[in-house]
Amino acid sequence: MDAAPAGFSQVEDPGPFLELVGPVHEREASDGAAVLGLRVEDRHLNAAGTAQGGLLATLADAALGRAVRASADDARSATVSLTTDYLGPVRCGEWVEAHTEIERLGGRLAFADCSLRVGEREVVRARAVFAVLG
Amino acid sequence: MDAAPAGFSQVEDPGPFLELVGPVHEREASDGAAVLGLRVEDRHLNAAGTAQGGLLATLADAALGRAVRASADDARSATVSLTTDYLGPVRCGEWVEAHTEIERLGGRLAFADCSLRVGEREVVRARAVFAVLG
Amino acid sequence: MDAAPAGFSQVEDPGPFLELVGPVHEREASDGAAVLGLRVEDRHLNAAGTAQGGLLATLADAALGRAVRASADDARSATVSLTTDYLGPVRCGEWVEAHTEIERLGGRLAFADCSLRVGEREVVRARAVFAVLG
Amino acid sequence: MDAAPAGFSQVEDPGPFLELVGPVHEREASDGAAVLGLRVEDRHLNAAGTAQGGLLATLADAALGRAVRASADDARSATVSLTTDYLGPVRCGEWVEAHTEIERLGGRLAFADCSLRVGEREVVRARAVFAVLG
Repeated sequence: MDAAPAGFSQVEDPGPFLELVGPVHEREASDGAAVLGLRVEDRHLNAAGTAQGGLLATLADAALGRAVRASADDARSATVSLTTDYLGPVRCGEWVEAHTEIERLGGRLAFADCSLRVGEREVVRARAVFAVLG
Repeated sequence: MDAAPAGFSQVEDPGPFLELVGPVHEREASDGAAVLGLRVEDRHLNAAGTAQGGLLATLADAALGRAVRASADDARSATVSLTTDYLGPVRCGEWVEAHTEIERLGGRLAFADCSLRVGEREVVRARAVFAVLG
Repeated sequence: MDAAPAGFSQVEDPGPFLELVGPVHEREASDGAAVLGLRVEDRHLNAAGTAQGGLLATLADAALGRAVRASADDARSATVSLTTDYLGPVRCGEWVEAHTEIERLGGRLAFADCSLRVGEREVVRARAVFAVLG
Repeated sequence: MDAAPAGFSQVEDPGPFLELVGPVHEREASDGAAVLGLRVEDRHLNAAGTAQGGLLATLADAALGRAVRASADDARSATVSLTTDYLGPVRCGEWVEAHTEIERLGGRLAFADCSLRVGEREVVRARAVFAVLG
């Protein structure tokens, strides 16, 4: 498998489950937000030969959670509801990036959007509500 | 880690990603539907020490996909939209079961519900729309 | 239009918007939960001649909100996220019932499920997260 | 109630239910997409005195459906799944606009995003999957 594109470095201390499915990489976007990236490998596929939906949900949830924490001064947060729409398949060897947007950060809840892309092609679009645990 | 409860056997040929995060087990419920089960281990946790949301979404998606295929005479299917609500945390060592219900199976779309439980405690409730690919 | 089925009575003080789209009726189910009901009329239809999705989302949201309040000792609550899946069309003259289940009621959040049915036919299945405002 | 802002005109033939809850207005955005708008009135409120969630879901669903049809050469379409997140309350007298984005239009399914705003304030964010009926 090819390495991550230039500008990305491996996420440190992502927690055990992201270590298991990763390595997950990150870079800083022009607006200061973090972009996560993952190279899809054979071990990420379902029986049909495309990236398992659960892998992509994992990447979206991780990116959303990191974005919420970054916005909330590192307050702890927990996913309340995650909606993941699958726009098209992702194949082995493709590099998937997670771009996030925090829509609203309140004292108890945060709302955010995540777009997973392979190049310019959007493959997953997700929304989440997080509880901000202060 | 303890083995799976009596009555469960390991899912055969679950595809590479479920092999990576599993082993996933199954048993037949009294109504003939399959129940999937997974023992949560250290490698399934997030940095906060509970089961990563992506792991639970993976289990829900896998259970829903298998239920749709079983209802659709093994037709191929693909997840279109998955909504996963997190009702409470799952801890290391707990045994999580996925119970599914197919609500409607049409020629092009299927709708289904999934409840993840630890014993009697519901920890995740999910809904999905699948494309039935004939 | 026919009246509501026996056992239903009109909801009192449902608020202005439910008065506009209603009348909405209710009866107590065998488990003590309230079942809401609505007769679909011409004014509820979309340009294609079936019940507008927004009408059905309104009925689901109203039923879910009432169920949360009933469970939470009449605490105020607000919808945080509502997912509405449309399993099949509803036609003019049909009687739609909303059956709800509170899955988890916490100090700050509640999770609930709603099934809209015409007779035995499920036409919409919805999930919601509510903020419990104490 | 004040009239719609300059540039908006009333939607013609919106179907019976939008006529009941409307009038709904529209204008063309700079990118050619339609923006829908609605003035929130007393009759749109819930018992707590803010716009009923079902009203906002109705506006989002209508805007999304129109955007899908416009992209799909006026093919008929039907909402399959609608997720509506409520970021903040809308009060009587406020003007709500629905801005939509079609993310993917396939032969059988379309995916789209909708942002409801009062001025610059985002009040609802919605996602939908539609069936394209050819």
